[in-house]
Amino acid sequence: MARIAALSGFPEWLPRQRIIEQHFLDVIRATFELHGFASIETRAVEPVDRLLGKGGDTDKEIYGVTRLAAVGDPQTEAELGLHFDLTVPFARYTLEHAGRLTFPLRRYQIQKVWRGERPQDGRFREFTQADIDIIDAQTLPFHYEVELPLVLADVFGKLPVGEFRIQVNNRRIPEGFYRGLGLDDVNGTLRIVDKLDKVGPAAVTEMLLEAGCSAGQARACLELAQISAQDSSFVDRVQALGVRDPVLEDGLAQLSAVVDAAAEHAPGLLVADLKVARGLDYYTGTVYETQLVGHEAYGSVCSGGRYDALASDGKVTYPGVGISIGVSRLLARLMPGLDATRSTPTAVLVSLANEDDRAESMRIATALRRRGIPAEVAATAAKFGKQIRYADRRGIPYVWFPARVEPDGTGISDQVKDIRSGEQMDADRTTWLPPQADLWPTVITRD
Amino acid sequence: MARIAALSGFPEWLPRQRIIEQHFLDVIRATFELHGFASIETRAVEPVDRLLGKGGDTDKEIYGVTRLAAVGDPQTEAELGLHFDLTVPFARYTLEHAGRLTFPLRRYQIQKVWRGERPQDGRFREFTQADIDIIDAQTLPFHYEVELPLVLADVFGKLPVGEFRIQVNNRRIPEGFYRGLGLDDVNGTLRIVDKLDKVGPAAVTEMLLEAGCSAGQARACLELAQISAQDSSFVDRVQALGVRDPVLEDGLAQLSAVVDAAAEHAPGLLVADLKVARGLDYYTGTVYETQLVGHEAYGSVCSGGRYDALASDGKVTYPGVGISIGVSRLLARLMPGLDATRSTPTAVLVSLANEDDRAESMRIATALRRRGIPAEVAATAAKFGKQIRYADRRGIPYVWFPARVEPDGTGISDQVKDIRSGEQMDADRTTWLPPQADLWPTVITRD
Repeated sequence: MARIAALSGFPEWLPRQRIIEQHFLDVIRATFELHGFASIETRAVEPVDRLLGKGGDTDKEIYGVTRLAAVGDPQTEAELGLHFDLTVPFARYTLEHAGRLTFPLRRYQIQKVWRGERPQDGRFREFTQADIDIIDAQTLPFHYEVELPLVLADVFGKLPVGEFRIQVNNRRIPEGFYRGLGLDDVNGTLRIVDKLDKVGPAAVTEMLLEAGCSAGQARACLELAQISAQDSSFVDRVQALGVRDPVLEDGLAQLSAVVDAAAEHAPGLLVADLKVARGLDYYTGTVYETQLVGHEAYGSVCSGGRYDALASDGKVTYPGVGISIGVSRLLARLMPGLDATRSTPTAVLVSLANEDDRAESMRIATALRRRGIPAEVAATAAKFGKQIRYADRRGIPYVWFPARVEPDGTGISDQVKDIRSGEQMDADRTTWLPPQADLWPTVITRD
Repeated sequence: MARIAALSGFPEWLPRQRIIEQHFLDVIRATFELHGFASIETRAVEPVDRLLGKGGDTDKEIYGVTRLAAVGDPQTEAELGLHFDLTVPFARYTLEHAGRLTFPLRRYQIQKVWRGERPQDGRFREFTQADIDIIDAQTLPFHYEVELPLVLADVFGKLPVGEFRIQVNNRRIPEGFYRGLGLDDVNGTLRIVDKLDKVGPAAVTEMLLEAGCSAGQARACLELAQISAQDSSFVDRVQALGVRDPVLEDGLAQLSAVVDAAAEHAPGLLVADLKVARGLDYYTGTVYETQLVGHEAYGSVCSGGRYDALASDGKVTYPGVGISIGVSRLLARLMPGLDATRSTPTAVLVSLANEDDRAESMRIATALRRRGIPAEVAATAAKFGKQIRYADRRGIPYVWFPARVEPDGTGISDQVKDIRSGEQMDADRTTWLPPQADLWPTVITRD
């Protein structure tokens, strides 16, 4: 038997941290559902030929899944692989079940995904994503590209993530701009400009020149990428660069619509940022990234965009727009600054003076649970001090003492002690309620 | 690209069915938490040498996980495998994190597991389990064996599972009984008697005789296995068989305690059934199975028991007791008889007469969501009849009509229509609430 050790890239939380993760997942789910997204889950595996070539550079990161006995058998080819995102499985699910789905389909999906890449800060081999997509058959109205980042702003606004910024661009803007400048290799130019944050403007200029741009073209590309604004003022700044192109104009109008809607529904949370490109070739319209303010070097924690050709059965194509929250990535960054009020759901520990009294303590716990109060009975009939320490170690706020008769014949009714204040009072198991804030563990920010 | 087809053994639900699954998972989680169980999740993979030999006959069912390029390379040996249950990973998690956990540890775990076995009715290659376990360091008090089936009865009592029965036995009873009879191969005898439901008493008798039992011993084994009772009356019936053994007496006292507690907290839901054996060798005390009444041939949907040696680091051993709900297995059986009131969380579809009015319809949806009402805006400014049909197809109960001015100059305020009754009335977006039953989709039983 191997020594027990953590597996690099496969993080696990302790119960107290898991309560924080659950809070994030609960808020994400509840907000997605308030916006009318329906849940689906897809199986963890897809046929390998469906995974290959779908995720940009991810082919080498796919985990194959094979019956154990078949691994290492030269006759074996992996037919199944673990999914590396939730978009490829969703496209397959849509095609497989299209006849039984209604479109436009608003779906969310919160699941683990796997990538065999080298683990590093915020990059894992197993991690949780939370995706929303809206897809339709054949055509998808533009207004969904306006709506999606507002859902995201609503989610993030309810989570203890600190200040954040959703950066939005539209692929049509660089595409039209580059073509208007006379540059035909749109994707190649995008890929170079995408490195701006990493390598700086001088290196990007050099790469653009090497790729055949004139000095003027390179300068214009850089000037475009450096434009960002929280309102439609970016339109004038782009037009001042003097490039005219119908695709560019279209992109500017769409991005304006996104920014204007955000100014009303999510003021200050969204910024038009013309350097945002997203690596994946399949995006065709609006693209999104999200940064935690003060953690910009960490990169995006939530990204997505409009796509037109991810799912097609040859007859019907399903265009869509989607955003994916990197839940594990987000939590890995935020966890050190967060805590839970306790490490267990239990709000009340019902004590017992004597093992023979266990049945009565169980009755009390049952009465409390019936009214929605999480409760457990003490493990052993130890001294009350020990039972209180047990509660204290887990952060359980209340200890319940069952009614008893003292040696001198005095009757003492049920009592409950708030072990934080030390206050102890008579309590009725059929009516007593803790303050709402103590009922379930909550997430707090560390000082 | 392969044709799109379902993968046998990897079931997926449509959005409407997923709402039913979510209801089951929500009730399971909420009830586990009311009983003071804390959530953990473990990674999907474990080192292969930790999985091998841990699950009885499951070795050949383990899925190996390897980087895609390495599959079929004779140099490759799978180091990782997908977990086939949640018990083996929990034992590893306990050992790995023991220093940062507090004992006794009450944990629940709801996750997918994978087994490469041949799919059949209620048996899948990917399925969801929901486990609770209580473990402690070195010793675990017996009373937890009494408590655990009560948690399960509480869960099942809140779910639309129809009539069910939790069958309980204690390994000490057959063990003591067999030894008292002079049979030393306890596990061998158990394995034969375990086939009683499948092959019947005559075949079991024949196998016992072949295994070396005398006719009297075989008859006594069968008589023991046929005893079941909802109260402690089974004790007299066992003792009437005339076998005396201290381990047997101990087992009878423990099983009586379980049945007596259940008579108070879960009347009629639990039965002492002396043929329940559970295949796995690691159980040492109370064992549990659960049957849906009327679906007995389907087998157990929820099983577990007391174990003493699953997790040990050589110095400290962690005994525990656990029960696992086969969520996918349960749902596969019940799904045909269940339905959801709608296929989306949306309670209100906000219509729009004109694409230019979208901003106003978004404001209405935002106002509703702020008060916890799931809402979405219509996809297009189609005729109202078409928007109502869209809502109807998804089961969305309400359509909202924004305030408007008619061509004759009449002002009409916001209105909401219950599309089931056709009733339409003035409504204020800041105060209107649907009946509680319409707020979120609910699960209903088909007639």
